[in-house]
Amino acid sequence: MENTDLILEGRNAVMEALKANRSIDKLFVIDSRHDGPLKSIIAEARKKNILVKFVSKDKLNEISSGNKHQGVVAYAAAYNYVEVKDIINVANEKNEAPFVIILDSIEDPHNLGAILRTANIAGVHGVIIPKRRAVGLTATVAKTSAGAIEYTKVARVTNVARTIDELKKQGFWIACADMDGELMYNVDLKGSLALVIGSEGEGVSRIVKEKCDFIVNIPMKGDITSLNASVATGILTYEAVRQREYK
Amino acid sequence: MENTDLILEGRNAVMEALKANRSIDKLFVIDSRHDGPLKSIIAEARKKNILVKFVSKDKLNEISSGNKHQGVVAYAAAYNYVEVKDIINVANEKNEAPFVIILDSIEDPHNLGAILRTANIAGVHGVIIPKRRAVGLTATVAKTSAGAIEYTKVARVTNVARTIDELKKQGFWIACADMDGELMYNVDLKGSLALVIGSEGEGVSRIVKEKCDFIVNIPMKGDITSLNASVATGILTYEAVRQREYK
Repeated sequence: MENTDLILEGRNAVMEALKANRSIDKLFVIDSRHDGPLKSIIAEARKKNILVKFVSKDKLNEISSGNKHQGVVAYAAAYNYVEVKDIINVANEKNEAPFVIILDSIEDPHNLGAILRTANIAGVHGVIIPKRRAVGLTATVAKTSAGAIEYTKVARVTNVARTIDELKKQGFWIACADMDGELMYNVDLKGSLALVIGSEGEGVSRIVKEKCDFIVNIPMKGDITSLNASVATGILTYEAVRQREYK
Repeated sequence: MENTDLILEGRNAVMEALKANRSIDKLFVIDSRHDGPLKSIIAEARKKNILVKFVSKDKLNEISSGNKHQGVVAYAAAYNYVEVKDIINVANEKNEAPFVIILDSIEDPHNLGAILRTANIAGVHGVIIPKRRAVGLTATVAKTSAGAIEYTKVARVTNVARTIDELKKQGFWIACADMDGELMYNVDLKGSLALVIGSEGEGVSRIVKEKCDFIVNIPMKGDITSLNASVATGILTYEAVRQREYK
């Protein structure tokens, strides 16, 4: 693991972190023999809506550093997450139309770090990421964000499709990036906007794509078919910046 | 070294590679006792304009994998470089105004790989990189380029400032990216264009910046001050694409 400094292992360490409301990216619990203390940890985690994964003892030995896990290992986030409403509040406080980026499963921490840099510099009000199948705010993300993680708010949601429904109710337009979309210059990216970027390998998932108001694409005239995910996010984000603030 | 498969060591291996005109990124020669064979290797390398670095025996032991270097180690490029004129020919053949990207010392192979992807997809005719203080076409670059390295031509030059002078004589406009420049939307990026991107840490060097016709910047309204180099390249490249081909 790259973020070894953020691995908590053993029952006390994990329970204390949970009680202190520390942001936990993932909780790994042994898949057998749940005694009282382990049951309490699982209950506490579920109360806080933290993803619990049940894994073998071998797997726990592998991800823990000292084999002192006592059946439980947690990956703590390097930074705390906020709620989606906190991101919208940032826009309201600045008296700006809300502009958020939704990342539908970015897995590479360098990409997430680079995207947080872009979001910060472009004046995006916050970034929304899913809990599952995506990298969280790890130490590598913090480092590659070049300080952006200190400023740009990140919310972590259980279900991206449901979050999109909630944003739509609040008047957001949802624009998904995909190759079969309309040319980005021809789509109106002004107003309350959520820009949805898919995963490195597979793009935006079908269920999320169906929720989008627009599908936008970056013009492509090369031999290969995909940009790096953080580069694509930068290009689309700045097309929105151009439309929203310049010409 | 990440590109261990591309390290050549020992006098025969290196001399054969030189004779076969294989692209060599860097040649390391021991800093003492140059006997006949080593002198021949150095002479052959200089004839081919390859960078020769003289290093201690300890350093050679460190960069070679099996301590069988016999005083010489070469880093071979994963792909062959072209000449600047080959890049201009690509544009001529397509009957397009030439559009090249000059990277003034990108050191991170992931950034170079991502930039090659962008260059390919945006229809840039080629990328120019310097021999010194910059990453070459290593195996990591090839991998992160997601195939772009097979299509997009890369020229490697001894002196970026001199290359810029030559491009200017051929009617190119030179646009450097820097924070103190004019807003990118207000600079004309059409016609024969070389877009110059600086290194991750220090931006475009003074001597190169002085050669540029325009300094362009990306609008920034955040708390931090720099984008990831490959993201910045993507945003500027696509602003040029917009102006050149859309509106």
